[in-house]
Amino acid sequence: MSGLAWIAVDWGTSHLRVWLMADDGSVLDRKECDQGMGRLTAADYERVLLEQVGAALPESGQVPVIVCGMAGSRQGWCEAPYASTPCEAPSLAQATQVATADARLDVRILPGIKQERPADVMRGEETQIAGFLAQEPDFDGVLCLPGTHNKWVHISAREVVSFRTFMTGELFALIGGQSVLRHSLGEDGWDDAAFLDAVSQGMSHPAALGCDLFALRAESLLQGLSPATARARLSGQLIGMELTASRPYWLGQDVVVLGESGIAGAYMKALDAQGAMPRSVSAADITLRGLTAAFETLKETK
Amino acid sequence: MSGLAWIAVDWGTSHLRVWLMADDGSVLDRKECDQGMGRLTAADYERVLLEQVGAALPESGQVPVIVCGMAGSRQGWCEAPYASTPCEAPSLAQATQVATADARLDVRILPGIKQERPADVMRGEETQIAGFLAQEPDFDGVLCLPGTHNKWVHISAREVVSFRTFMTGELFALIGGQSVLRHSLGEDGWDDAAFLDAVSQGMSHPAALGCDLFALRAESLLQGLSPATARARLSGQLIGMELTASRPYWLGQDVVVLGESGIAGAYMKALDAQGAMPRSVSAADITLRGLTAAFETLKETK
Repeated sequence: MSGLAWIAVDWGTSHLRVWLMADDGSVLDRKECDQGMGRLTAADYERVLLEQVGAALPESGQVPVIVCGMAGSRQGWCEAPYASTPCEAPSLAQATQVATADARLDVRILPGIKQERPADVMRGEETQIAGFLAQEPDFDGVLCLPGTHNKWVHISAREVVSFRTFMTGELFALIGGQSVLRHSLGEDGWDDAAFLDAVSQGMSHPAALGCDLFALRAESLLQGLSPATARARLSGQLIGMELTASRPYWLGQDVVVLGESGIAGAYMKALDAQGAMPRSVSAADITLRGLTAAFETLKETK
Repeated sequence: MSGLAWIAVDWGTSHLRVWLMADDGSVLDRKECDQGMGRLTAADYERVLLEQVGAALPESGQVPVIVCGMAGSRQGWCEAPYASTPCEAPSLAQATQVATADARLDVRILPGIKQERPADVMRGEETQIAGFLAQEPDFDGVLCLPGTHNKWVHISAREVVSFRTFMTGELFALIGGQSVLRHSLGEDGWDDAAFLDAVSQGMSHPAALGCDLFALRAESLLQGLSPATARARLSGQLIGMELTASRPYWLGQDVVVLGESGIAGAYMKALDAQGAMPRSVSAADITLRGLTAAFETLKETK
């Protein structure tokens, strides 16, 4: 492939995303597959990567491959030690180089970020943060990164000052998909009014989670509660709990929610209802922007 | 089998338990298998029951089979409509008779109990309650029935006045066994001090559940948190939340916890630490005692 300058890789728990990049920052090609960290051993990574990019590699020379995400965890390709808060989003200077059998690959895994008290970790989100800061370098406020493990990140002077991770998305998936509530919940469908009521209930009575959830099952059996309403209430109750515990992160802060649809939209609505006036920014290619920012530092040091 | 007078059946979601009973109340034989409601269709029940008791049936005549539990749910053998609170534990007069191909079986499924506001249901626990009341007919107080779906039941004048179900046990199993925390939790082992600290945290900061749980993962990665301590903290935090929401059920009440070991012991410790002075009673054969009490009413009406 003509013009391949470097390869950007977002290697998460469940997915691998790869971008083949030209020197001018344009994307030559992009690939995605389900060969995430969760199903690989350390010996698998180079083979899986070559399946995606091998055909594009030049016959000689070396191509930088910049990787973020769970590939850098202890159970991943090669452990990339965490940077510690407060810190800037890690740059290539802190990356871990990985030896490869194919000499055309120059693989560097970016570190995640850790926080000692309260104990917390991220891997991958630090690169999304870098991507966001590439757009808004002077941002001073709180970034909300919705996902399986939702993160609230206090950013000031380009540094990650502190952060907290909530398992809200994973709890929603487990309770909705695998508990007794799976019989009462729809796979899709939504009820905005029920969602916002449940956010209020979750905020004001977080301890009642265990019985309020079972009540969804009982209302479904006894009163014909609709699956879409049950799903919106489960989501609202969990997000409401989180908003109570994360209040120091959003109350009176300049809050930006990453993403515009799905779960990000639900966080926007819930925050709006609390008068928090959040702003949303597109999550499209934000990881790629963060990886590109890291690649720029490589060019500078050359 | 000589002397078979009736058959007691506890047919739950995951297990089937059967007792072959003599007329004097003694147990001739007991059986248990994993053919629970969750893996059966309505057409399977008679066959599965006959696999367990067929050899013991007389050549002629009819044997009463008294059933409690999820076999009476809509997805079970035959739906046995709920009794409504406030009510006594349902008797055979309210049971649903089930037609069988084998004329030697006279099958009656006991109803569960429902509550309209807050919406709640039980199937099987009402028979444990009947078993407890057969021992302590004058009990006036609160019965705590630990399990997958923990129940708090206010009992007065032999009636179930009100009850609430908490999904605490199911949440513990899902989060401990299937979330990202599975990597940080032990399958056994325990830490009493960590458990009681987590009960306090869960009671005072229930909204923080989602981030406190992720902190277990982070402490395990960063600070070598032991799997046994992580497991005790998960349990404590969930039970602490529940104790806050269920406070009207145990504060200043005569509380009896059903069962003496495992999760029942954890509830005892947590309640003790709040000064609730609970009493524990053995759960052994309590369902059989409830089914026996129902059988006694059959004899009386004959």
